[in-house]
Amino acid sequence: MRILFLGDMVGRSGRTAVFDQLPGLISDHKLDFVIVNGENAAAGFGITGAIFQATIDAGADVVTTGNHVWDQKEALGVAAREDRFLRPGNYPPGTPGRGMGVYEARNGARVMVSNIMGRVFMHPDLDDPFACASAQLEGGALGSVFDAVVFDFHAEATSEKMCFGHFVDGQASLVVGTHTHMPTADHHIMEGGTAYMSDAGMCGDYNSSLGMDKEEPLNRFLTKVPKGRFEAADGPATLCGVCVETSDRTGLAEKIAPLRIGPRLSETMPEWW
Amino acid sequence: MRILFLGDMVGRSGRTAVFDQLPGLISDHKLDFVIVNGENAAAGFGITGAIFQATIDAGADVVTTGNHVWDQKEALGVAAREDRFLRPGNYPPGTPGRGMGVYEARNGARVMVSNIMGRVFMHPDLDDPFACASAQLEGGALGSVFDAVVFDFHAEATSEKMCFGHFVDGQASLVVGTHTHMPTADHHIMEGGTAYMSDAGMCGDYNSSLGMDKEEPLNRFLTKVPKGRFEAADGPATLCGVCVETSDRTGLAEKIAPLRIGPRLSETMPEWW
Amino acid sequence: MRILFLGDMVGRSGRTAVFDQLPGLISDHKLDFVIVNGENAAAGFGITGAIFQATIDAGADVVTTGNHVWDQKEALGVAAREDRFLRPGNYPPGTPGRGMGVYEARNGARVMVSNIMGRVFMHPDLDDPFACASAQLEGGALGSVFDAVVFDFHAEATSEKMCFGHFVDGQASLVVGTHTHMPTADHHIMEGGTAYMSDAGMCGDYNSSLGMDKEEPLNRFLTKVPKGRFEAADGPATLCGVCVETSDRTGLAEKIAPLRIGPRLSETMPEWW
Amino acid sequence: MRILFLGDMVGRSGRTAVFDQLPGLISDHKLDFVIVNGENAAAGFGITGAIFQATIDAGADVVTTGNHVWDQKEALGVAAREDRFLRPGNYPPGTPGRGMGVYEARNGARVMVSNIMGRVFMHPDLDDPFACASAQLEGGALGSVFDAVVFDFHAEATSEKMCFGHFVDGQASLVVGTHTHMPTADHHIMEGGTAYMSDAGMCGDYNSSLGMDKEEPLNRFLTKVPKGRFEAADGPATLCGVCVETSDRTGLAEKIAPLRIGPRLSETMPEWW
Ligand SMILES: [Fe+2]
Ligand SMILES: [Fe+2]
Ligand SMILES: [Fe+2]
Ligand SMILES: [Fe+2]
Ligand SMILES: [Fe+2]
Ligand SMILES: [Fe+2]
Ligand SMILES: [Fe+2]
Ligand SMILES: [Fe+2]
Repeated sequence: MRILFLGDMVGRSGRTAVFDQLPGLISDHKLDFVIVNGENAAAGFGITGAIFQATIDAGADVVTTGNHVWDQKEALGVAAREDRFLRPGNYPPGTPGRGMGVYEARNGARVMVSNIMGRVFMHPDLDDPFACASAQLEGGALGSVFDAVVFDFHAEATSEKMCFGHFVDGQASLVVGTHTHMPTADHHIMEGGTAYMSDAGMCGDYNSSLGMDKEEPLNRFLTKVPKGRFEAADGPATLCGVCVETSDRTGLAEKIAPLRIGPRLSETMPEWW
Repeated sequence: MRILFLGDMVGRSGRTAVFDQLPGLISDHKLDFVIVNGENAAAGFGITGAIFQATIDAGADVVTTGNHVWDQKEALGVAAREDRFLRPGNYPPGTPGRGMGVYEARNGARVMVSNIMGRVFMHPDLDDPFACASAQLEGGALGSVFDAVVFDFHAEATSEKMCFGHFVDGQASLVVGTHTHMPTADHHIMEGGTAYMSDAGMCGDYNSSLGMDKEEPLNRFLTKVPKGRFEAADGPATLCGVCVETSDRTGLAEKIAPLRIGPRLSETMPEWW
Repeated sequence: MRILFLGDMVGRSGRTAVFDQLPGLISDHKLDFVIVNGENAAAGFGITGAIFQATIDAGADVVTTGNHVWDQKEALGVAAREDRFLRPGNYPPGTPGRGMGVYEARNGARVMVSNIMGRVFMHPDLDDPFACASAQLEGGALGSVFDAVVFDFHAEATSEKMCFGHFVDGQASLVVGTHTHMPTADHHIMEGGTAYMSDAGMCGDYNSSLGMDKEEPLNRFLTKVPKGRFEAADGPATLCGVCVETSDRTGLAEKIAPLRIGPRLSETMPEWW
Repeated sequence: MRILFLGDMVGRSGRTAVFDQLPGLISDHKLDFVIVNGENAAAGFGITGAIFQATIDAGADVVTTGNHVWDQKEALGVAAREDRFLRPGNYPPGTPGRGMGVYEARNGARVMVSNIMGRVFMHPDLDDPFACASAQLEGGALGSVFDAVVFDFHAEATSEKMCFGHFVDGQASLVVGTHTHMPTADHHIMEGGTAYMSDAGMCGDYNSSLGMDKEEPLNRFLTKVPKGRFEAADGPATLCGVCVETSDRTGLAEKIAPLRIGPRLSETMPEWW
């Protein structure tokens, strides 16, 4: 089956690009399943119920998040209410919402999606991401119970990302990192058959600092005096993500390729689409 | 002119790949100037005098480093002695060696190379990287005094890397990040004409954790009990880096493209080579 | 001469306690010079012009700050306008205000006061605190140009605090840490004659988390879901600080003792007052 | 009952002071139970089997540790073998040794001792310290199953320490922090009856950086070039710790006082001893 994952939508520029282009991508390329990270969709900080719904309406099967998940208070309600909304699964017991779900794809396949946060350079007070993944994977095996298993591993450090990839290698179709907002060029299929890419990048304006207007971030580096708030950059967005083709039999990855559509970065689409 | 930058060589696997392939790349593609980051060349930790010399002998004009620069004690002597060896320029006054140099390229051009370290998630006790770059750039302007200016910005956080790129945009030919050991796919020419890529990636074995054998790093994530030392992975290496073509008139970038040669990652060479 | 330093006033509880008790302390114990850290005086976050003025009116000769200095925007104006207001001296060049000043004490003595921030576990983008102190100390020597020299070293890590103390030992009357809001019991006179205490503690409600109402900080540790803002605790405050007696001849410390007045902690006053 | 807790013994100086003085303290002051933190006892890094045994022989009922627990490899064996050796309880499942134990005091009382590590500014990959304490406390209640409950909370940040104290307030006799190696002066009995002190300080040479010879730590702050290893300071040590008197009926604290014996810091003993 054919899966598309899109990195963090940042602000109006990023989410509009996704809403405009995702329906066409799905129909043109017969995508079976789509996951979009939405943690920065609302002006760069969190996500609202309306944006979540618009993302689903545009064709996303699941919206994942990360450390910014609760930046908009209403996300607590969205998480509690919506099965297709995931927050990091290694938040403490009692956190609203869920970190993992099982969904039916357009082709009828059963897809498990998990959103987990890394700890290095991030919040130090999260549960063990490796133990979290282990527990989740006990719920059913790839190739039998699940036709595909996808991890959105929201983390900063490449060491933790790579080790996480090796850790679930052979038990997942795809491990894709998010959070750095910078697409990596290390997409490949690991020894055990799991497709891996350290970071999907963001869907946003790349003439920026991580999708945010570059003026204030740069000011904070240069002076110690805040001049204003961080605001999402409003130039044209580039969609960034990753595509995998999985084996119907094993659920493992047969192909992986990046997707980049928009100005500024070099554009690319899977040649096998 | 044509410049090649290769990311951190990691261990024997990485440095051997560079020593074997760099001479051919230089002659086949008429490279005018080559920079190689060597901070992990000696078994993953630092660099020796012999490895430095072998890198120069293979055709590198400059060897840059980063936080691992002093892991091998003899590097202090190398830094003090060798003009073509750079350590981060924002180390405190009195640190042996230099963080910036001006070199003559094969085509006779004058190239300024600077090695600076970021601070976010890194050593908190470095001088301001932005102020360091400002001071260095006062030494002469791109397009008049210098035919090319290259920054190896050794840093963890993409926000700091992007802001640094914007900061020197228009005054440098290339800003390339190192340290995460993961090539990014965000190579582009910024508004002011400076080529930018968040991270060059490493020259090393990508079936690993950052070029190190994955067993012990993974063990440290899974248990809190060290089982052994970190050792460089010894599988076949992939060369990762970035190539720019600069304007002879302005010194700014006209083209940028990644280079990836070896197993596991998708291979790529500048189509304009 | 007799110097009193009071740690970070936190919120209304902390500042009211200082305003109420400082005039009596000054007159009862013939204090020659008083320094108060005010970075948390305004509801726990920053300081306003009115609070600054009230602190001076209560008898403080200098108000120091720390990482919270700009939490209230009007502090930028206060810093620019008021000689008796200090912000960390190792902020980048161009930052409003000053990090060091020279003041006349009640007894006519000349006192240099410096406010410097540490880097470990703190903002990674500050200038070198050690180099900052070196440069400041070149302005004049203790015992000749200055009758007393006091450093408020605003830092998290005890290693950095102790090393800073050793670094200026013999050149300062007092090095006192702030920022952890917890008084330490390690006040002593170092080998070179400088009085040292790792942290002055805070002037605030100790039935709290660092002077803030404990409910929300504890909630953040227990869940990943913010329930509200951080608010200053409003129980009765304890004054915490440190007192030194310096030699009129050398400016070095002859005596050091903690001061703790209020409920909850064990009360103490210099027995030599 | 009467409990003494001594902070991290650092190197030969620290451990010798404990071995020499602890037997006399126990007999002179009729101490019912003694806990000593030993994570830095072996030259500043970890602890050996012989040092563990000598600490027990000197009268310690339990030896706690912290982030340095595995610095000496043989500690893995000690942890596996010795009931009286504790390592942080929130290390991942499968870690050798235990984080909590129940012991019989000299007066026949049942004492639960727990060693837990904080996460802020520390290892980001530990299990939740609050959840760990909760689970441990479900094993039996203070005042019924246990006559005393003591937590050695090994942590950097005072916010986390205070919040941990509030969290178990009423369920423990004593929460004492370790790790900063600097005794705090905030010992008090919290609202619920639990005695609390942010940090016990260390047993070591205070003319130092955290008990280590100050030369190399200071060098690292001043230059970025290591000159040598960190070595334990060898000047005379000061014992630092905290004493509590608990209610035989409730197990809660009735009195708390610091203990400091040795040169440099102000000496103090419980006046009620
Ligand atoms: Fe994001
Ligand atoms: Fe994020
Ligand atoms: Fe590296
Ligand atoms: Fe590095
Ligand atoms: Fe403060
Ligand atoms: Fe502070
Ligand atoms: Fe320690
Ligand atoms: Fe420790």
